[in-house]
Amino acid sequence: MLKTPAYAAPSANAPLAPYAIERRQPGPHDVLIDILYCGVCHSDIHQARDEWGGSIFPMVPGHEIVGRIAQVGNRVEQWRAGDTVGVGCFVDSCRVCEACRDGEEQYCENGANFTYNSREKDGKTPTYGGYSSRITVDEGYVLRIPAGIPLDRAAPLLCAGITTYSPLRRFGVQAGQQVAVVGLGGLGHMGVKLAKAMGAKVTVLSHSPSKRDDALRLGADDFVATRDAVAFADHAGRFDFILDTVSAGHDYNAYLGLLRRDGTMVLVGMPEPTALSAGALIMGRRRLSGSLIGGIRETQEMLDFCAEHGVAADVELIAMQDINDAYERMLKSDVRYRFVIDMASLKG
Amino acid sequence: MLKTPAYAAPSANAPLAPYAIERRQPGPHDVLIDILYCGVCHSDIHQARDEWGGSIFPMVPGHEIVGRIAQVGNRVEQWRAGDTVGVGCFVDSCRVCEACRDGEEQYCENGANFTYNSREKDGKTPTYGGYSSRITVDEGYVLRIPAGIPLDRAAPLLCAGITTYSPLRRFGVQAGQQVAVVGLGGLGHMGVKLAKAMGAKVTVLSHSPSKRDDALRLGADDFVATRDAVAFADHAGRFDFILDTVSAGHDYNAYLGLLRRDGTMVLVGMPEPTALSAGALIMGRRRLSGSLIGGIRETQEMLDFCAEHGVAADVELIAMQDINDAYERMLKSDVRYRFVIDMASLKG
Repeated sequence: MLKTPAYAAPSANAPLAPYAIERRQPGPHDVLIDILYCGVCHSDIHQARDEWGGSIFPMVPGHEIVGRIAQVGNRVEQWRAGDTVGVGCFVDSCRVCEACRDGEEQYCENGANFTYNSREKDGKTPTYGGYSSRITVDEGYVLRIPAGIPLDRAAPLLCAGITTYSPLRRFGVQAGQQVAVVGLGGLGHMGVKLAKAMGAKVTVLSHSPSKRDDALRLGADDFVATRDAVAFADHAGRFDFILDTVSAGHDYNAYLGLLRRDGTMVLVGMPEPTALSAGALIMGRRRLSGSLIGGIRETQEMLDFCAEHGVAADVELIAMQDINDAYERMLKSDVRYRFVIDMASLKG
Repeated sequence: MLKTPAYAAPSANAPLAPYAIERRQPGPHDVLIDILYCGVCHSDIHQARDEWGGSIFPMVPGHEIVGRIAQVGNRVEQWRAGDTVGVGCFVDSCRVCEACRDGEEQYCENGANFTYNSREKDGKTPTYGGYSSRITVDEGYVLRIPAGIPLDRAAPLLCAGITTYSPLRRFGVQAGQQVAVVGLGGLGHMGVKLAKAMGAKVTVLSHSPSKRDDALRLGADDFVATRDAVAFADHAGRFDFILDTVSAGHDYNAYLGLLRRDGTMVLVGMPEPTALSAGALIMGRRRLSGSLIGGIRETQEMLDFCAEHGVAADVELIAMQDINDAYERMLKSDVRYRFVIDMASLKG
């Protein structure tokens, strides 16, 4: 085993602190990755604080991992030491169910092995995430980071990027369509960049008028402050597609009214249950759906798309030691737009 | 004007009673229809009792109308006296909005002129429905009842039929797919027949185990009693498509769990707002939508489909004078599966 420095939440109520974990020696099909950067996702906080239940402690969060391959197993052909790679939200899956065979490992019917707060394929060993200096991962669950994307700004693509790219693609957003992005946080800012790169006319819908300048700077064509209830009447029936990235409870019915006939709204945040009016769907035959990250194949497609279109996350680089402060700032939406841990700080 | 016997609700709290209305003399593009049969839809009760608000009294309900053309305007070319025709939920619309131009008059952006409890194009004259001996309708809002469908059993196709046919078609139900129909009332029993005629494998989901025999007799391949909560675990991930016809409040999340990945559930009842869990959509990328009747073109397509496949509603024929009793029985779900008024009774 490879003793590896990390930061862990010892329990739901304690701050994250230094913790030593063991990584497995790479097996024939594994790669060992020296982690350079790890993005900080809102779900890291939810899970570290056991807000979704069932958390496994001590927990090493982090599923927006970028690093360099240090060593490959003796049967690995597609990767070499020195390759710049990423690891996203899962590190393995059953590989035999319909979802896995369809390249939709995130929906693995037997439960994907998530990058942290989950179990290895043995069903016992806890998985530990990217708040650590290295990780051993099966070669099939590793992504290639294409040249041209700054590595720190690539890290958030592994979760925030694919979470917003996948629904834009799956629900067929086309160039020229009117796309709204609800919420301008880590997910929302990627949604704006990606929808824009796909050629859509992008409008940011945000409660807070203060986000207007940033929205336009990030590439949005328009901005609507939703604090003003009249906005929902003024923009009724405007959008072909709404990407809803908000994780706090909000009124889906009001947003559905902004869709054209046959338009689709997709939830990628995980708000609390909200009262849905059947009429909001029946009138205009509107569709409401949700989307969970994306599969390995699609994540690679997204990374290649980002390289081709010059898309990367806007990040604030932090030291590993600053993680607890970063969590507090995230809870106040005080981050533009993703904290990324510089893992060199863990060695220092 | 043409003095016309009818039955009307004088107010939200009074039973329906005889009432004389005036129908307009057919204009150049109108047809005058002698009404033979009128189906009784649950929305007749809701509106006659002002349960949706804004009801216009006195109200003559009825939007599942079948009759014979008595007279045509001098510019009418597509219809002749003696033709057997139907009128559904609307009798006119703006004709210029995108929805109307797309043949989706039910979604008219300027508000369709509904068959009753609505206004004529003058914006003033109340519309009166099919609980009456005749009706004058613009030629473009009349449907042809194809030979071979018994006329009494054709009447419910004009609302219950198109309401269930349209989503099955629009959301691409294919032969061989697993389709569930939730609820076995007026809408549900049509959903079973239509989905079966389209070649789907049809399962009825009903709270009440007593509906099993009827479900199978109507053509369903399977029946699941949802009173037993374990049913939701036993059938998780089974269906490609769920047609939800229930108008009482129910837990969408539980039903969404019965869909396969990327499956769709469509609401056609109008239940009260219900708490929706984002996870029920995000997990499995499931889609929830709604659908409102159908346009004129699609309604004609549905009637032709029914004639071709021998599909018609199961009805209980009643006299106009029995309407108040019929409402009470409908509220107890004591009808198999649609009351249809024999309008000859109004003359007798």
